[in-house]
Amino acid sequence: MAGKIGLNVAQICLTKDCTEDEIVDELSKLNEDPRVRGVYLHLAPALLTGRVISTLAPEKDVDGVADLNMGRLVRGDPSEGFVPAEAMAVMEVLESHGEFHPQPPVGENIDRNSNILWLSPCVGDTAVGVWLVVGVMGQPNMCVLVSLQNVVLGSCRWLREQQYQDWSLRLLKLQPLNPVPSDIQISRAQTPKSVQQLAQEIGLLPGELEPYGRNKAKVRLSLLERLQAQPDGNLVLVAGITPTPLGEGKSTVTIGLVQALSAHLKLNSFACLRQPSQGPTFGVKGGAAGGGYAQVIPMEEFNLHLTGDIHAITAANNLVAAAIDARMLHEATQSDKALFNRLVPSVNGVRKFSPIQISRLRRLGLSTTEPASLTAEEVRAFVRLDLDPSKLTWQRVVDTNDRFLRKITVGQASTEKGHSRETGFDIAVASEIMAILALADGLGDMRVRLARMVVGTSRSGQPITAEDLGVSGALAVLMKDAIKPTLMQTLEGTPVFVHAGPFANIAHGNSSVLADKLALKLVGRDGFVVTEAGFGADIGMEKFFSIKCRASGLRPSAVVLVATVRALKMHGGGPNVSAGSPLPREYIDENLSLVTGGCHSNLRKQIEIAHLFGVPVVVALNVFKTDTAAEIALVCRLALECGARAAVPCHHWALGGRGSVELARAVKEASAAPSHFQFLYETEMPIVEKIRTIAQKVYGADDIALSPQAEAEIQTYEQQGYRSLPICMAKTHLSLSHMPDKKGAPTGFTLPIRTVRASIGAGFIYPLVGTMSTMPGLPTRPCFYDIDLDPVTEEITGLF
Amino acid sequence: MAGKIGLNVAQICLTKDCTEDEIVDELSKLNEDPRVRGVYLHLAPALLTGRVISTLAPEKDVDGVADLNMGRLVRGDPSEGFVPAEAMAVMEVLESHGEFHPQPPVGENIDRNSNILWLSPCVGDTAVGVWLVVGVMGQPNMCVLVSLQNVVLGSCRWLREQQYQDWSLRLLKLQPLNPVPSDIQISRAQTPKSVQQLAQEIGLLPGELEPYGRNKAKVRLSLLERLQAQPDGNLVLVAGITPTPLGEGKSTVTIGLVQALSAHLKLNSFACLRQPSQGPTFGVKGGAAGGGYAQVIPMEEFNLHLTGDIHAITAANNLVAAAIDARMLHEATQSDKALFNRLVPSVNGVRKFSPIQISRLRRLGLSTTEPASLTAEEVRAFVRLDLDPSKLTWQRVVDTNDRFLRKITVGQASTEKGHSRETGFDIAVASEIMAILALADGLGDMRVRLARMVVGTSRSGQPITAEDLGVSGALAVLMKDAIKPTLMQTLEGTPVFVHAGPFANIAHGNSSVLADKLALKLVGRDGFVVTEAGFGADIGMEKFFSIKCRASGLRPSAVVLVATVRALKMHGGGPNVSAGSPLPREYIDENLSLVTGGCHSNLRKQIEIAHLFGVPVVVALNVFKTDTAAEIALVCRLALECGARAAVPCHHWALGGRGSVELARAVKEASAAPSHFQFLYETEMPIVEKIRTIAQKVYGADDIALSPQAEAEIQTYEQQGYRSLPICMAKTHLSLSHMPDKKGAPTGFTLPIRTVRASIGAGFIYPLVGTMSTMPGLPTRPCFYDIDLDPVTEEITGLF
Repeated sequence: MAGKIGLNVAQICLTKDCTEDEIVDELSKLNEDPRVRGVYLHLAPALLTGRVISTLAPEKDVDGVADLNMGRLVRGDPSEGFVPAEAMAVMEVLESHGEFHPQPPVGENIDRNSNILWLSPCVGDTAVGVWLVVGVMGQPNMCVLVSLQNVVLGSCRWLREQQYQDWSLRLLKLQPLNPVPSDIQISRAQTPKSVQQLAQEIGLLPGELEPYGRNKAKVRLSLLERLQAQPDGNLVLVAGITPTPLGEGKSTVTIGLVQALSAHLKLNSFACLRQPSQGPTFGVKGGAAGGGYAQVIPMEEFNLHLTGDIHAITAANNLVAAAIDARMLHEATQSDKALFNRLVPSVNGVRKFSPIQISRLRRLGLSTTEPASLTAEEVRAFVRLDLDPSKLTWQRVVDTNDRFLRKITVGQASTEKGHSRETGFDIAVASEIMAILALADGLGDMRVRLARMVVGTSRSGQPITAEDLGVSGALAVLMKDAIKPTLMQTLEGTPVFVHAGPFANIAHGNSSVLADKLALKLVGRDGFVVTEAGFGADIGMEKFFSIKCRASGLRPSAVVLVATVRALKMHGGGPNVSAGSPLPREYIDENLSLVTGGCHSNLRKQIEIAHLFGVPVVVALNVFKTDTAAEIALVCRLALECGARAAVPCHHWALGGRGSVELARAVKEASAAPSHFQFLYETEMPIVEKIRTIAQKVYGADDIALSPQAEAEIQTYEQQGYRSLPICMAKTHLSLSHMPDKKGAPTGFTLPIRTVRASIGAGFIYPLVGTMSTMPGLPTRPCFYDIDLDPVTEEITGLF
Repeated sequence: MAGKIGLNVAQICLTKDCTEDEIVDELSKLNEDPRVRGVYLHLAPALLTGRVISTLAPEKDVDGVADLNMGRLVRGDPSEGFVPAEAMAVMEVLESHGEFHPQPPVGENIDRNSNILWLSPCVGDTAVGVWLVVGVMGQPNMCVLVSLQNVVLGSCRWLREQQYQDWSLRLLKLQPLNPVPSDIQISRAQTPKSVQQLAQEIGLLPGELEPYGRNKAKVRLSLLERLQAQPDGNLVLVAGITPTPLGEGKSTVTIGLVQALSAHLKLNSFACLRQPSQGPTFGVKGGAAGGGYAQVIPMEEFNLHLTGDIHAITAANNLVAAAIDARMLHEATQSDKALFNRLVPSVNGVRKFSPIQISRLRRLGLSTTEPASLTAEEVRAFVRLDLDPSKLTWQRVVDTNDRFLRKITVGQASTEKGHSRETGFDIAVASEIMAILALADGLGDMRVRLARMVVGTSRSGQPITAEDLGVSGALAVLMKDAIKPTLMQTLEGTPVFVHAGPFANIAHGNSSVLADKLALKLVGRDGFVVTEAGFGADIGMEKFFSIKCRASGLRPSAVVLVATVRALKMHGGGPNVSAGSPLPREYIDENLSLVTGGCHSNLRKQIEIAHLFGVPVVVALNVFKTDTAAEIALVCRLALECGARAAVPCHHWALGGRGSVELARAVKEASAAPSHFQFLYETEMPIVEKIRTIAQKVYGADDIALSPQAEAEIQTYEQQGYRSLPICMAKTHLSLSHMPDKKGAPTGFTLPIRTVRASIGAGFIYPLVGTMSTMPGLPTRPCFYDIDLDPVTEEITGLF
């Protein structure tokens, strides 16, 4: 027996000595082999058994034998010759069905030396094809009826599969209750489709899906190649006005919008969300899967380990940290020669550089690949990274709100020989590797970015990278599954990608480029991908345009700007809003003048910022139950006056997609309008000028003021060749300015730049405006006090 | 339309106003709902469309309508009355098939007021059943042929599924090469079956599987309930003689043995392995998936994130740590009243204890559930855990070899207000939560164990638990998926469970109770589950018997004791063996006297230890290519003299299962012999006596010597009520004694007990004999220098 693979179709041929077991084995392997697109069976009749036929996967069945298993297999009596009576009877039945009209067999069509008994054209109600009745050479103990149509269909299937497939989305019905139950109650009341089902509905091939349990799956990046020729859909960015500390509901608007687009306007749409950190889930904030009747389900899976991407980032980040400290210790305690002998060990008498080491040699300007040829000076340069402990920028991470790890001293055990130093842990999502995951456009690009991450500076001022540490390949291996976006669904059964979740201050705060790109292919030319940016539009949207769009080539067709009456009142001069305190009366009673103030300050400015980039704005007013009709009407009217293309109230929290249909229509209309996307600055400008441009044009500052430290740092980055990176401002999200209590649209201020850092692997410079906490703490009573699970039903309680 | 669920069978009934879309929706939900075992369709003829029929999942199809979709659907002409010609034609064909013999329709059998046209008994070649021809009330525009047999079959399917199902294992063929290629080359050359396929072959139901990608899946614990009545198979423990620092191949023997049992003796078998830490994978040791032609595949998935269990443990462990430090800070900076007001906040004017807080109140002896009723004294007792910083035992963990975290100072940021303290990180698998995962026998039991973990002691000497911290429910939530074992396969396609991997010194070093229990049900009465213990038999096996068997009720039928000529020579007086140095000549050339010495000392003693527990021993000599025939024969002969029931050479590394057939036969024979399992000590003995029993009977010590610290600690544990816990000795694995360089079977020594610790959640006391490192370091040239991946093929290089 031979399994030949050619043009993705395997032919199983007969050899005399193979057994049924062997054929079943071979078939099973071919079934499982994703490279094999189809299988022809050429077997002796005795081997074409029910077991063999049922083994062959229907999707691999090129000549339709699997159909035989459905009751069409007719066992003939050898004594009856080539055309058993049963075959005739079957033909007649087919005729009588009115669906198939085989011609009667004609003697001369029967080739007694081949398997083919007769061939007859067939035209049915639904099918045009050829019917082929097959006997078997010499020993006609079996006669089968095979549709030659299947040969054609099967041969075409692979090509057809490669094409874009229209969606056949089965929606999940929502019957919103009033009052709206808790998020987890709503989530649990809805049974999600299996993720395989969802994937099939949106045109994914089974081989493109890697399920993680029943409700979530990773999607392989090969999809991008398969749908290369398919035009992208429309990309819509959801941003917000400057929020109160309570948040104004960008995630719920995002989810409500896709529920409305897909479930109510029947337009293909995809939401692209960030994966939340587990820290806040058990700390103060709770979940991040949306809320009310606009949620990703099951919300507990969204909020917990998901498919392990953040854990992979933690593992990769901390491997770099361990490599740094161990390397410094080894360099401090060994001679050049000892280091070299260990780094390039003699194996069976031969020393050889690993590819990662050759890459370091190249960075040092050494072209050799022969260890013995290095001079003592070159050996020294090669083995000593000579990291300056005072200039290490790499921190360890955990995905836990662990405030006691903010500043620590490591290396205090006697085994570390006194090489202790001060450092700290960040929350995992603050890792540069998270920002890389969000910006990489493929495995190769991610590998390159991981390699060029700068972890510190040598005593001579050279940046030291993950590649210099020899760890970049291992990082790529740790991250190889994390790079695939995770598919989930909304409460109404519409698709969602969850992928990456970089910090919105020290990083760019947007979900992944890859999730957006995959979704844009899947929704099709007329579809919509709704992706979310962190914080207010001055931060999240600006970074989306300046960093994510620049890195990826993505271009949005519209911006949805989320506003609430609450936040507008705050910007209009309302009293302080803070988490944990009851809302002042101004926020509960109608107050049109505060609303007007907010619209004319912060809302107007945020719309203007979007227009700097040439993108139309739809204002989505996320309606709370205390909002009055007059307030709602006022916001919508003033938003139009401030330049929004449309402004609509949204009721997704209480009603699901039905509550956001008006928004969906407005977004569709805005996306159809011509867009004139442009960048705010050229990357070739000096770093200082880029920072100044953002401060003045986006924040409304008069100017910037650099600390001496910041000036020196900028000079270093420009010397090190990092001048042309875009800027990622680390600024408070609670004001357009750097002063959290200045609401509305502050003017007349100078933006102070305290210090300037760089994420070279991710590809941006990040100036710090004030102090950014990269490790949250636990309050006296963290969320976890209420979280538990029922050991019998496995149902989780207390997540919100 | 109504979807009624009763007895796990849904009936879809007709209502006048439902549409095809609604029926398809409803059916899709029922298809997906694991609670629904079957669906009857009672629909108006116009609604019984091809789309409806094809929507219903065949496995839910109780009355066989799905068969209609296979071409048996006959569209009738309303003008032709109740029995369309097509139906007659179909009947005739069925008759002519020789398989079914329906009786001709008889007028009086036709009930014109029901759906049933006629009923006729049918006896075929393969089926006995009833054929039912169904028309439709009043409007006979459709006539379908339904096998009533399916009604019976469908109704019985659920019951049948609940039963144990025989395996139909499709083996993967091995064609071992010589010389044996690298592990990753061998692993990659074999295409594993999809895990769904494997699961089906070993009798798992689709609903019991949670795939994680193509090659691995979690198995739901509900299986234990389904197969409750099924007798367990045979449990075989793989242990080893005292190893050299290079290891003697217990994992490869384990995998080779199941490959031999399943693939060559056709006996159902399962290997239960521990999940390896990622630390060594990137540090010095490399992978742990076996080696050569006895491996778990794909080995890279085994060695990397797997299904995220260790990451879940890390998250859970570190949430406890963060909770401890945050709580100490909050207690130090707040009054009793402020703490109480925050811990039991007023929500809409009402204060309420959470269930976890009520559980703490009970531990304090308070029966109230009314916050207002607490006295000031009770409030103080409730809000203050009053942890003694010098008596905290809980460490943080990472799954990285990060030596600089062995001893650290945390809390040095100004936000922590001077509350810094010394602590450290362990490698993740050293977490008590890992030991709990390995010992828990269900979700409820795990929840209980997590709650009772002691993290430190209050200043008044009370043990403080995870439940006191309020975090135990969150821990259970974080661990809810980790508790399900992960199914993978060997190179020959036989099943493997990978689950848990606790340290073998400070914990008990065995894979999980649940994996063993699930596997024992799946293999069936005559099958074999081969489970592995860490280190030598004096440690891993003793703990398996004393801790794991005691906790679980598991009883092994045989012990496989792995030996190598190399280790035996070392015990017989051969020179020092150490990692990184070339092996001395004695280990390469034949040396029968060293072998004899090793057999008469260490091998004999380890066999005797197994006999202390009443279990028969099969010695498996893991053959290396330098072993001579005389050495092999000598070991086998002497092992029998030392009391082994059998002793056989194994060649699985070079040959796969075929190389271990002799071992498999010996194990089968030994398992059939009567076993007289007994414990070594009663748990009610004083802690000191239990330690002494192990030291004397297992290690061969004259006595034990407790340090004053150890004596005090033992006294504390006995006072706290932990006296009856079993003992988990933390001793070097390189000698039967506490002195790593004493090989063979040392005598005449006193075992020093330095300190005694406790894992109360896991359920054991662990005396430390010497210093145990719980955080490995990275060498100068870690494994990661060679690890990389191809960005196009996604293939990993450099893992071994």
